[in-house]
Amino acid sequence: MNAPAAAAHLLPEIALRPVPQALLDALAARFGGQCSTALSVREQHGRDEGSLQAPPPAAVVFAESTRDVQDALRLASEFGVPVIPFAAGSSLEGHLLAVQGGISLDVNRMQQVLSVNAEDLTVTVQPGITRKQLNEAVKDTGLFFPIDPGADASIGGMAATRASGTNAVRYGTMRENVLALEVVLASGEAIRTGTRAKKSSAGYDLTRLMVGSEGTLGVITEVTVRLYPLPEAVSAAVCSFPSIEAAVRTVIQTIQLGVPIARCELIDANSVRAVNAYSRLTLREEPMLLMEFHGSPASVQEQAETVQEIAREFGGQAFEWASTPEERTRLWAARHSAYFAAVQSRPGCKAITTDTCVPISRLADCLLESVAEADASGIPYFLVGHVGDGNFHFGYLLDPNVPAERETAEALNRKLVARALALGGTCTGEHGVGIHKMGFLLDEAGAGAVAAMRAIKQALDPKNILNPGKIFAF
Amino acid sequence: MNAPAAAAHLLPEIALRPVPQALLDALAARFGGQCSTALSVREQHGRDEGSLQAPPPAAVVFAESTRDVQDALRLASEFGVPVIPFAAGSSLEGHLLAVQGGISLDVNRMQQVLSVNAEDLTVTVQPGITRKQLNEAVKDTGLFFPIDPGADASIGGMAATRASGTNAVRYGTMRENVLALEVVLASGEAIRTGTRAKKSSAGYDLTRLMVGSEGTLGVITEVTVRLYPLPEAVSAAVCSFPSIEAAVRTVIQTIQLGVPIARCELIDANSVRAVNAYSRLTLREEPMLLMEFHGSPASVQEQAETVQEIAREFGGQAFEWASTPEERTRLWAARHSAYFAAVQSRPGCKAITTDTCVPISRLADCLLESVAEADASGIPYFLVGHVGDGNFHFGYLLDPNVPAERETAEALNRKLVARALALGGTCTGEHGVGIHKMGFLLDEAGAGAVAAMRAIKQALDPKNILNPGKIFAF
Repeated sequence: MNAPAAAAHLLPEIALRPVPQALLDALAARFGGQCSTALSVREQHGRDEGSLQAPPPAAVVFAESTRDVQDALRLASEFGVPVIPFAAGSSLEGHLLAVQGGISLDVNRMQQVLSVNAEDLTVTVQPGITRKQLNEAVKDTGLFFPIDPGADASIGGMAATRASGTNAVRYGTMRENVLALEVVLASGEAIRTGTRAKKSSAGYDLTRLMVGSEGTLGVITEVTVRLYPLPEAVSAAVCSFPSIEAAVRTVIQTIQLGVPIARCELIDANSVRAVNAYSRLTLREEPMLLMEFHGSPASVQEQAETVQEIAREFGGQAFEWASTPEERTRLWAARHSAYFAAVQSRPGCKAITTDTCVPISRLADCLLESVAEADASGIPYFLVGHVGDGNFHFGYLLDPNVPAERETAEALNRKLVARALALGGTCTGEHGVGIHKMGFLLDEAGAGAVAAMRAIKQALDPKNILNPGKIFAF
Repeated sequence: MNAPAAAAHLLPEIALRPVPQALLDALAARFGGQCSTALSVREQHGRDEGSLQAPPPAAVVFAESTRDVQDALRLASEFGVPVIPFAAGSSLEGHLLAVQGGISLDVNRMQQVLSVNAEDLTVTVQPGITRKQLNEAVKDTGLFFPIDPGADASIGGMAATRASGTNAVRYGTMRENVLALEVVLASGEAIRTGTRAKKSSAGYDLTRLMVGSEGTLGVITEVTVRLYPLPEAVSAAVCSFPSIEAAVRTVIQTIQLGVPIARCELIDANSVRAVNAYSRLTLREEPMLLMEFHGSPASVQEQAETVQEIAREFGGQAFEWASTPEERTRLWAARHSAYFAAVQSRPGCKAITTDTCVPISRLADCLLESVAEADASGIPYFLVGHVGDGNFHFGYLLDPNVPAERETAEALNRKLVARALALGGTCTGEHGVGIHKMGFLLDEAGAGAVAAMRAIKQALDPKNILNPGKIFAF
């Protein structure tokens, strides 16, 4: 197999399940040109943006409808063969790897906006549409969809990993913003979870159970999400701080005062340097907060004044406003490029990205000790964070040819996760468990809770065909 | 058995499961004075505030700790005997009825506040504490817990039914406000779901699965909920309207404009009359909106002006402000007493309360046709609603000695639910399914989704001992 030695120790033992030729024949008969066994196609579907690797799937089916998804699952179920849902391919924790073999089910061709209900602030879409495409599609309604992971991820994939991003501090995550789903279960049966009503007490919350289940309980074929009125006024600002601590203390106090800040991002000096180089900017190369305020003009001004005052108290300098849409777009594009900028700052490197999230009162404790450890390790790294939510990412930049570097980075990650859990936090704020965090999930949730998850998986997918080997070993 | 004929046709066929004397002996040995088989105690635990009846449980165990809950469940599991968790007893859909016999597990003595984390806006409590007790306990922190169903319900029960109330339009429901739980499973094993982190992608969302599971998947023994800073400024207003339609159109436009209104309640003229009599008030006996605005002084003023302008457009009159805490308390006490006031307006009556919730754009359609049907039926009724969320309650006031009245009321309810579902809504916005809405859940979610719920139940509670016969037949 072609999993490199450096990654292999992180993968659960790969036990490929057979993909009978009869299944491949049946898929070819049913799907014709919508099914491919070409190596390049399979390889492209056998990886994500994380650093783990596994052999590619045996075939790729390009679904164009719920019916296609149902038929693919019925065939896979008949043969007991794993199915891995695939859309933008931007996950980070090995979610898309065919660790038990099987087929990839690509939903990228399912990109329709099925209905916009502007009056109810909802929209129903197919899973393959990306967040940027969705915003483009609804822009004439005066509404927008706020959830923005770094990548231009698909809405289906974002639901599957319970994604969030820079706006979550005000607008919540996919957990709060998915109202209803259509999901195809392992048997091929399609069910609907939830309605367009804003709230409901009608039975088990299958919507929230599917959100974050990483393709292991069903394949999402329709998603109804909330939209929000474009704020009347928007104002963004950057502010530099003498230390990460000063920046973090500013954030903590802002949140504790209940300021409804829309975005509140930390980027450390390493990231600013990388972003300056990558995006040709001239930001001060110090720890920095990027903030955005949404509301009526009066409320935006009130929020901004409050935060400015807090920042001053902690030595914040060079509070710069970006009030035009162009300036704001430039700033946020820079933030979203931080990952790619940092990766390019060490040519040939692979990034291992951490994702802990802690209660805001513990943010400084968790972050500062981890910064000290990262500094001491000698591994190049960057740090960015949705710090208004207590969530932050170290990216350790590894030379893939030096196994010791990966070991150092994984050790730093383990220490960080242990620290976050001890402080009442989680090992993953928004990236999901995938393969990479299965051990951390066990530490966090405990054996009993993971056994309950596994029992649910077994009940809904008794043949274990839906993205097996992710979240927990089953 | 003492289920009256009028209710019996609504109950699934009662098949009492045996409660062996050996279990009662074992409970007595383990729990001593914490276990009672006195008829009066059993009867008090065998009903809720709804109109259905069933024979009482065979015994009541008063748990004082998680360990007590675990031991009670272990014994019940050993003997395969149903366990019905009980706290405030304020549910409405027959949730607490021992329809398959068994024992009641009372958690009212578990009322401790375990930890207040004011800096993180969270608090962890035992399940028996009521929402008013919780607010009393945290009032010195400057924070509050907003979820307020009509009754002074327990936090555990509110989590179990996914409750909400008048503040949900701004602060969300128990779905959005429970961060983490400790739950004892049917086996007696205690698990933790969630952490105190504001967001997480760590595996299946067991927290949200348990919230709204109505005691059928586990017994909640600890609840971590969000708190909110007491708003700097609060302002409440009542406004009378020439028709229900005018009031509803005002609400729809308010929500669609994105005004962050904190409370937005409709009460119809029947309810106003009842409330005036019950609370000695002199409110205008016309359809009325009760509203509340939270925020900074400037933002509250801005919100209020916007809504006042909309109301005027729709003929709203007598916009009256209640700015002192005393006036506001009087108004909201009146709103919360509407149910009891209405029930007292027809001496000896029983109320059947509906709970549909629809997308806000469909609110007028759903409500107005249902008002016309209720008027035509001749059954006395009242109508109140959390209309900012699209959720409203008809209360049909029945003479329990006239079976035809119940049939008329149930027929009205069926029509209302069918209408709400056709409009993209739900049969229950906040009361839950219990026994009464099992048929409606099937209509709403479909057989496939209910089968998935049942499969989850079977996986986590294979002996079907946790509040059996609720939500779905199993």
